[in-house]
Amino acid sequence: MPLNENKSHGVPKSHPRFSSLKYRHKIIEGMKNLVVAEAGLIAHGRGECFDYIIGEKTIKTAKNAINAAVAVLLTAKRPVISVNGNVAALVPNELVALSKLLNIPLEINLFYSKEGRIKAITEVLKNAGATDIKGTNEDMMTELTGLESNRRKVDFIAKADVVMVPLEDGDRTETLKKLGKMVIAVDLNPISRTALWADITIVDNIIRVIPEMIETAKQFKKLNKKELIEIVNNFNNKLNIQKTLDLIIDYITKQKEEAFKILE
Amino acid sequence: MPLNENKSHGVPKSHPRFSSLKYRHKIIEGMKNLVVAEAGLIAHGRGECFDYIIGEKTIKTAKNAINAAVAVLLTAKRPVISVNGNVAALVPNELVALSKLLNIPLEINLFYSKEGRIKAITEVLKNAGATDIKGTNEDMMTELTGLESNRRKVDFIAKADVVMVPLEDGDRTETLKKLGKMVIAVDLNPISRTALWADITIVDNIIRVIPEMIETAKQFKKLNKKELIEIVNNFNNKLNIQKTLDLIIDYITKQKEEAFKILE
Repeated sequence: MPLNENKSHGVPKSHPRFSSLKYRHKIIEGMKNLVVAEAGLIAHGRGECFDYIIGEKTIKTAKNAINAAVAVLLTAKRPVISVNGNVAALVPNELVALSKLLNIPLEINLFYSKEGRIKAITEVLKNAGATDIKGTNEDMMTELTGLESNRRKVDFIAKADVVMVPLEDGDRTETLKKLGKMVIAVDLNPISRTALWADITIVDNIIRVIPEMIETAKQFKKLNKKELIEIVNNFNNKLNIQKTLDLIIDYITKQKEEAFKILE
Repeated sequence: MPLNENKSHGVPKSHPRFSSLKYRHKIIEGMKNLVVAEAGLIAHGRGECFDYIIGEKTIKTAKNAINAAVAVLLTAKRPVISVNGNVAALVPNELVALSKLLNIPLEINLFYSKEGRIKAITEVLKNAGATDIKGTNEDMMTELTGLESNRRKVDFIAKADVVMVPLEDGDRTETLKKLGKMVIAVDLNPISRTALWADITIVDNIIRVIPEMIETAKQFKKLNKKELIEIVNNFNNKLNIQKTLDLIIDYITKQKEEAFKILE
């Protein structure tokens, strides 16, 4: 159920940075509700910056990666979507809708553990309609070998073949890959360790990615397995990241003159 | 007095991201002490990202801007350095050292006002040895016309000819310019409104800028007025920003191959 977001942070809808300020507010509120870690605010800022230099829109290479990601999730045996605090704070409704549409569980997996955080995130997801939430009972969890952080504690992820990791840290992505899992990452930094290690890297803002994945999933559900596998096989992640860097270079090159127009 | 920073956030000095994590910790601590606004964490994250794409070092164009900035501050009639929460949290000792070396007051000026914030920042600056702090008594302040945010409330800034604004918002920079003041900005985003509006834009991390300015000021104090004015006259801010964008493009171009080497 969407909130009256226009009122929630006192910024008028006409403000040129309305959307950015709205999600910034959600992250800050998330911190106050224990959902978001303090370092999650800093991570959100890093994302904002990278979003600027792709022009704050879903660029073509991101759409290619989204197509491959949805095709993989539709053909996987035991896929799972990992959820952290920032994702839960930013797009809980959309995430639950995607999870239900693809019939894939959500697993809470946090870098920063803190008393009450898992419970707070579980509440957010339940309020958004989630019924299949993993990673909520630490006693039932196993540990990924080769990973020191709190992220090592996993539930369904331990036996998953495909793990979608929106807003992830590099160490875990590397570990998941080394354990033979296929990793789908959403990361605005195209050359973060996560972006480089993942099999499919979606360089785009999570607030645009999940709705786009939902639309894509609705279409791709009509395709057969062979067609889906072809989409995956035609996708080259390294090349796609390099093309993303080209688009960023194009954007910055254009800004060498464009940016100064505000002074005219 | 430097803290034992190695212990303060539990990250070993050998960690490849030690410096970044140390300052991230200072910002989070700053928030807990009221010095930093919540949105200041997000702003810090944006800075981190832009710092990546200049290679986390003081690039040549930043050094050019630092030279021009120091020369201007040494020849100005009534210069002032504006201080916000993030700057106070990150480099209080360095800031006070620069202020004393140049004999320039510090003025606390905040976008996010909150009960106790000015007092908290004053404490931080006093602990760092500051004796000349402006902007601490709201009753004594005037308001800049044309500015809606809390930043409109100013003290010494009202009559200053040169204002150095480290980590600034675009609205105030524009207002200061329109009031005929010369603005020196420190901003990691080379095409933010602040960066574009300022007379001298230092695109570099504040943690490197202030120490570099201190070293430069020690040298430039030996120059005469004519020599200092020549340094200022030879500086072209638009061209310098465009060259900064070129350096960023070079960096990203190099990353198209370099970045993937971590997978080898």
